[in-house]
Order: sequence, then C-alpha cells, then structure tokens
Amino acid sequence: MTSHISPVPLAKASRLLHHGPTVLVSAHHEGVSNVMAVGWACALDFAPPKLTVVLDKITKTRQLVEQSGIFVVQVPTVPQLRLTHEVGNRSLISDPDKLAESGVELFHMDGYGDLPFVQGCSAWMACKLISEPHNQQTYDLFIGEVVGAWADDRVFKDGHWHFESADPAWRSLHYIAGGQFYATGESMVYGEEP
Amino acid sequence: MTSHISPVPLAKASRLLHHGPTVLVSAHHEGVSNVMAVGWACALDFAPPKLTVVLDKITKTRQLVEQSGIFVVQVPTVPQLRLTHEVGNRSLISDPDKLAESGVELFHMDGYGDLPFVQGCSAWMACKLISEPHNQQTYDLFIGEVVGAWADDRVFKDGHWHFESADPAWRSLHYIAGGQFYATGESMVYGEEP
Repeated sequence: MTSHISPVPLAKASRLLHHGPTVLVSAHHEGVSNVMAVGWACALDFAPPKLTVVLDKITKTRQLVEQSGIFVVQVPTVPQLRLTHEVGNRSLISDPDKLAESGVELFHMDGYGDLPFVQGCSAWMACKLISEPHNQQTYDLFIGEVVGAWADDRVFKDGHWHFESADPAWRSLHYIAGGQFYATGESMVYGEEP
Repeated sequence: MTSHISPVPLAKASRLLHHGPTVLVSAHHEGVSNVMAVGWACALDFAPPKLTVVLDKITKTRQLVEQSGIFVVQVPTVPQLRLTHEVGNRSLISDPDKLAESGVELFHMDGYGDLPFVQGCSAWMACKLISEPHNQQTYDLFIGEVVGAWADDRVFKDGHWHFESADPAWRSLHYIAGGQFYATGESMVYGEEP
C-alpha cells in the first residue's frame, strides 16, 4: 500500500492544499496519538511552505500539537468520508477507542519517529509548529512549517493533482456542515474554457 | 440581476467558505477600488464569523485594505474563470485598466458606502479588518470579521449551498497553479454513501 507514497518537493507542497480540501490533523505525544478532521486549513506560504489550521481548545489533538510541536496535515479521500466525519465528531478525551472505531489505520515515515500518518489519504505534510501564542490563544489559529511532504502517486505526480484522470475515489472532500461534503470536481484550465 | 442577492445570517456565513473556494478580495480607499484573486482564504470562527486571507505585500488591494480597514471576500463562479485568473495576475499598480480589461463589474450594497462588490459572484462577505500587525507583516496574513453576508439565492439558500441542483455554472473555483482550477464537485452526505 505504501509503495505508491512518493515524496513531494517542498516547493510544490502548498499545491496539496490549494483546492481547499478538508484535512485530517494528527499528532503524537508520550505514547498518545490522535487524529481529527479540520475544515479550516489553508496554505500560507510557498517557500518555505507554511500552512494554517484552526484547532479548537476542546480537542485532544490540539494538546498533542502544543506538547510535541509537530503534526501531520493529510488530505482524505472519498472512501474516507465516514472516517473523516467520525474523527471530526468523536473526542479521544471521552472516547478512548475513537481511532479504531473510526476506521483509522496509522503508519510511520522514516525519520519522523512516532508521528502518526493516516493510511489511505492522498497527501501528507509533516509540519513543525511555529509557536505563536497570541494566535493560538485568541483565534485557535496554528501555523506550521511543512518540513516533509508526500503524496500517493496515483493522484498527485510531477507536482500536479490528477483528479481528472485518477479513479474518482481519489477526489478530496470539502466539508460544509451537517455531514455534507462536496467532492473535488472537474478540471478547468484558463484559456481552454468551454 | 441583483434581485437574487439575499442576506445570509451571520451565524451561517462561515459556510460560504467551508468548501475552500478561491475567492476575490476587493477594497476601496479614497476613490480607488481594486479586486484581486486569493487562493489562500479560510474560515476562522463561527460567531462572530471571522476569516483569514493571505495578501502579498506587492498588491494594491492589500494597501487599500490596510488604509480603509474594510474589504469584501466574494466567491467567484465558473463563468468568472477568466476574470478570476486575470485579477490574480494583473496589478493595478502597473495596469490602471486592470478591472475593465478583466471584465469586472462592481456594485455597491446599501449601508457600505463605496465598498466594491463584484457582480456575478455566488456569495459576498463584507469584512472589518482585525488589525494584527505582526501577522500582517510576518506572514501576509489578514484576519477579518464578517459584518455582512449575502448570497445569490439561485445557489445558496436557507443556509446551504445547492450546487447539486443549481446550474453547474454556479459552482465555485478551486485554484491549483498555472491557470488550472477544479470546480466544486458532487455532493456526498455522511450516512448516505454509495
């Protein structure tokens, strides 16, 4: 399964988020791993690539990010709709079996220790927390510098998403509210409008 | 044309951005209006609704936002692909005819003075700048509080997007790079997976 996971050059990493997908944020600290869904994630810079994620104070994942200073932002796919909804609605604090019951399977990347990556996603970004206490406290806004990026080469290759030629199951999810998502749709190129 | 523009309750305003579309940011100061495309825009809070946008230092729109303290974030549609690409690639600083040549037609909203809104979009949010000089200077990151929100009721009604039943021309654009966008795709509801 992991044989399709290919490194993405950091200069192209921000493209993994440009289309505005809902993401999964995962982190680990002292034996505890967690994963949550985050609808509010956004690229912030190209070089070095940075991103923002909004992490509510009630979440365990936020604690793990603050304690460890490192987290993963990954892009879930259509078959992970249930998983994405579940990890966004259950809390590890009240529900110790959250990950297993949500269908999450974790894996590790060489050189990133216990940092948990979610299997079945289309792209992964390992992010070092850039500590900004005012933003974190006032706005729940966290800034990460992307220090490693990977994608499944069946949908992202040569620095580009290939949703239009890949199996539709690889499309990203864009959460709205109340369990409703939109999948990424058709490709449109400037100068080639219908 | 504007007869379809309906107010969106502020409690639902963040939904206008949840699916992660590319947006147009517009602002006005002392007789000068401008519009730019912003790929990096994100909801930040529900109540009061807030959002983040990344505005590069070289842009005229950023100057207007800093000078006036108010801006509009609006969601362009498929027929505005050329417009979106053009206002993202031309600068008013070197190209005084940018707006006309990009096909931008502006309108105003009662109570918002000269604040420029772009015709043909699917949704509009008037945002008061929350001044955060460190974020603005270090990260080009601007925070706005949404003080007014409207949508075209042919695609957003009763607090929900209706991309699945509206004309496909109403779909949002999700910019990747090099003139390529993805349109918003099919609706998927948790519990109703195929």
